[in-house]
Amino acid sequence: MAIAQVTIIPIGVGSSVGNHIAKIQAELEKSDLEFEINDMSTVIAGEFKQILEIVSRLHEIPFKNGAMRVITNISIDERRDKVVQLGDKLKSLTIRNQK
Amino acid sequence: MAIAQVTIIPIGVGSSVGNHIAKIQAELEKSDLEFEINDMSTVIAGEFKQILEIVSRLHEIPFKNGAMRVITNISIDERRDKVVQLGDKLKSLTIRNQK
Amino acid sequence: MAIAQVTIIPIGVGSSVGNHIAKIQAELEKSDLEFEINDMSTVIAGEFKQILEIVSRLHEIPFKNGAMRVITNISIDERRDKVVQLGDKLKSLTIRNQK
Amino acid sequence: MAIAQVTIIPIGVGSSVGNHIAKIQAELEKSDLEFEINDMSTVIAGEFKQILEIVSRLHEIPFKNGAMRVITNISIDERRDKVVQLGDKLKSLTIRNQK
Repeated sequence: MAIAQVTIIPIGVGSSVGNHIAKIQAELEKSDLEFEINDMSTVIAGEFKQILEIVSRLHEIPFKNGAMRVITNISIDERRDKVVQLGDKLKSLTIRNQK
Repeated sequence: MAIAQVTIIPIGVGSSVGNHIAKIQAELEKSDLEFEINDMSTVIAGEFKQILEIVSRLHEIPFKNGAMRVITNISIDERRDKVVQLGDKLKSLTIRNQK
Repeated sequence: MAIAQVTIIPIGVGSSVGNHIAKIQAELEKSDLEFEINDMSTVIAGEFKQILEIVSRLHEIPFKNGAMRVITNISIDERRDKVVQLGDKLKSLTIRNQK
Repeated sequence: MAIAQVTIIPIGVGSSVGNHIAKIQAELEKSDLEFEINDMSTVIAGEFKQILEIVSRLHEIPFKNGAMRVITNISIDERRDKVVQLGDKLKSLTIRNQK
């Protein structure tokens, strides 16, 4: 299982890139992957191949909307020693804080 | 104003790097910067220089705990055309969804 | 056409990760993609899908060598307004410097 | 000693961001840090604080040239167990290949 953070940056289409976030959300909702959108990136949990597959679709969104250049940054953290889920780090913080 | 995402990766100290997250949280709470911890990174809002200053301190944490090598990834998004705050993108999503 | 930079970080297998670089090079040479290895990453030119395909194979290398956790960072810059090749930025610098 | 890779992305100023590369090179040459420019980023060797200092100046370049938004990505790899220099990984590859 892997957790990834993905940032899609359309280049040359104005300073406000807000309206493509809604499209990213819509594309992610079509998949059955768990995800969370924050101010800098989208965090996605799934198998490595599933994540690359959805990233390919997200990367296509700005091109469909007229961009001629897109920079996509992906960081994928895959563990084969344990099952990971979105929220695990926060849970671990909460448990520590309660001790 | 800038928003950054920061990931601190201690190298060569075992596969579980969870216990340094609590120390990162403690260091961030000493500052007065707004921050959110997610499964892949910490998102921080502040002035560019403030962010680099806190990143320097976060990067030092694994060395203090015995690591001999640390990889720190930072992505800083600075806008000078408008004020940005943590949560803005999610707010914009909510507004769109209500329409 | 796209250019990507890829960094594969094995976690929990010691501070020296040098010996997996040679394996990364060997894997890349099996493909017919243009690439350059520098001190922080491997820069690869190709079509978006070809790049994700080779990244999947590179990401697998540390697992084959015993790692239980691997973090892979990818930045892909795709342009549809012009053909790009490895070395274009350096050529543009040289031309400027000669003026 | 640390090695960093830095990518400065001006947002909303057209698809060709080539002309700011020459300014990045000029700024780096004013410092006495070792650096190499490739197609995706600039690789810099130096102390952690020196690197953040030069990154601050590089990040400022697009703003001086009219950009209202700049995304700067930095990956810093610091080792305290051995001295590192630009070119070490390539040297290690060459030695392996000769064996």
